[in-house]
Amino acid sequence: MKKILIIGIGAGDPDYVTMQAVDALNRTDVFFIMDKGPSKTKLIELRKEICRRYIKGNNHRFVDATSPEWARDAEDYLSTVDGLNRDKQALFERLISQEMSDGECGAFLVWGDPTLYDSTIRIVEMIAGSGRYELEYEVIPGISSVQALAAKHKTTLNRIGQSIEITTGRKMAEGFPEGADSVVVMLDGGDTYKQFADQNVDIYWGAYIGMPDEILISGKLKDVVDDIERIRTEARRANGWIMDSYLMRRGGGAKI
Amino acid sequence: MKKILIIGIGAGDPDYVTMQAVDALNRTDVFFIMDKGPSKTKLIELRKEICRRYIKGNNHRFVDATSPEWARDAEDYLSTVDGLNRDKQALFERLISQEMSDGECGAFLVWGDPTLYDSTIRIVEMIAGSGRYELEYEVIPGISSVQALAAKHKTTLNRIGQSIEITTGRKMAEGFPEGADSVVVMLDGGDTYKQFADQNVDIYWGAYIGMPDEILISGKLKDVVDDIERIRTEARRANGWIMDSYLMRRGGGAKI
Repeated sequence: MKKILIIGIGAGDPDYVTMQAVDALNRTDVFFIMDKGPSKTKLIELRKEICRRYIKGNNHRFVDATSPEWARDAEDYLSTVDGLNRDKQALFERLISQEMSDGECGAFLVWGDPTLYDSTIRIVEMIAGSGRYELEYEVIPGISSVQALAAKHKTTLNRIGQSIEITTGRKMAEGFPEGADSVVVMLDGGDTYKQFADQNVDIYWGAYIGMPDEILISGKLKDVVDDIERIRTEARRANGWIMDSYLMRRGGGAKI
Repeated sequence: MKKILIIGIGAGDPDYVTMQAVDALNRTDVFFIMDKGPSKTKLIELRKEICRRYIKGNNHRFVDATSPEWARDAEDYLSTVDGLNRDKQALFERLISQEMSDGECGAFLVWGDPTLYDSTIRIVEMIAGSGRYELEYEVIPGISSVQALAAKHKTTLNRIGQSIEITTGRKMAEGFPEGADSVVVMLDGGDTYKQFADQNVDIYWGAYIGMPDEILISGKLKDVVDDIERIRTEARRANGWIMDSYLMRRGGGAKI
């Protein structure tokens, strides 16, 4: 029997790591490292810092597990993701069969929370369900960038008794969701928030949340929309990548 | 200057506590304890276990901060919550002015994540904003019951590229949200999921998540609806209270 741990390590800040994740890190024999693209160096540094800080002893190894870059702007989004996930599944199967011995524990360290906009669970589930391996797996939740964003802005995600929608830039571009009060947008490759600048909307925006470069901007969208666009463009240019998200809320209504 | 820490301590399991929360627990001089109702004994036990396990030394004290019971079934929901929050605000102001010295650090320990369906941030923000006190505050995110639910069921919250709606039993009773794919329901005093048993819906239900009494049920809603209702009723009767939530997802569609 082999074991896979899918460990949420939180949104950037090593202090977001939970006790459950520390325990899981210490049970791991082999870490599969999947960082790629322009953010690779920074993210690998952060992972190593987490491992250095929380793992006792040195009975573990790292294996490169990079897969093709996710083509976020592809025409047919779903079939692109499907194709990439099939590639990832083939890669994960190879790692599990060739890079782990029976009785060993392998881990994928997922930024934020593995249950939110991450495909690791789906892929490992497919492999475990195929019956081709003696495999079990566990999921360890982590502080998501959504929660970190709200905490840093010292605001709640919902208004009293109201719903929250968590969505993607792609879906948000179709319009402010019907009946939604608070909307959290992740994976926005563009500047979709700009579409709503003529509406009565508050925004809480953040980039590189939990990291040393963290940037936070909030206010009436129409007042801060230009600042966000400018600062976002500058930061992306300076770092070569950006990881940002935002909460938008219809203005007015009960404050308490 | 006085400081308030609003600390998310995760959904039940002391292993969900983050490093950041441990640091905050150790900076706290006075803990304000707000548990009440039939779950009071169990929840106070869990809090004490967290404090015992993670606080070094004994330079802290506990102060009772119970407030009126939340009348979940009240006719006018919003004004009831408003009224209760005004009572809470008066209570918090008394605690801050009378139970803390200048330079001290007070903490509210919030189950799950303080940014999600919890009023502590709103109330402390109102007090800090009133200008009547030299007060600053910090928000420390925690693993929410939503994430813990998904992790325990080893499933993702969203399907690829799709949105997630987090809502209340009260809102859910109005119907399956328009265009929603995955819906997480919290604070459901009734059995609202039953309304959707004739639809093609999968459910992932959990009660007392992260606690020793944890119960998990998942499957096609129409196949498990009676089990959930029966087990939920029995557990509530046996314990005198229940804390549960569920993820519902429209059936069919891409699995990966």
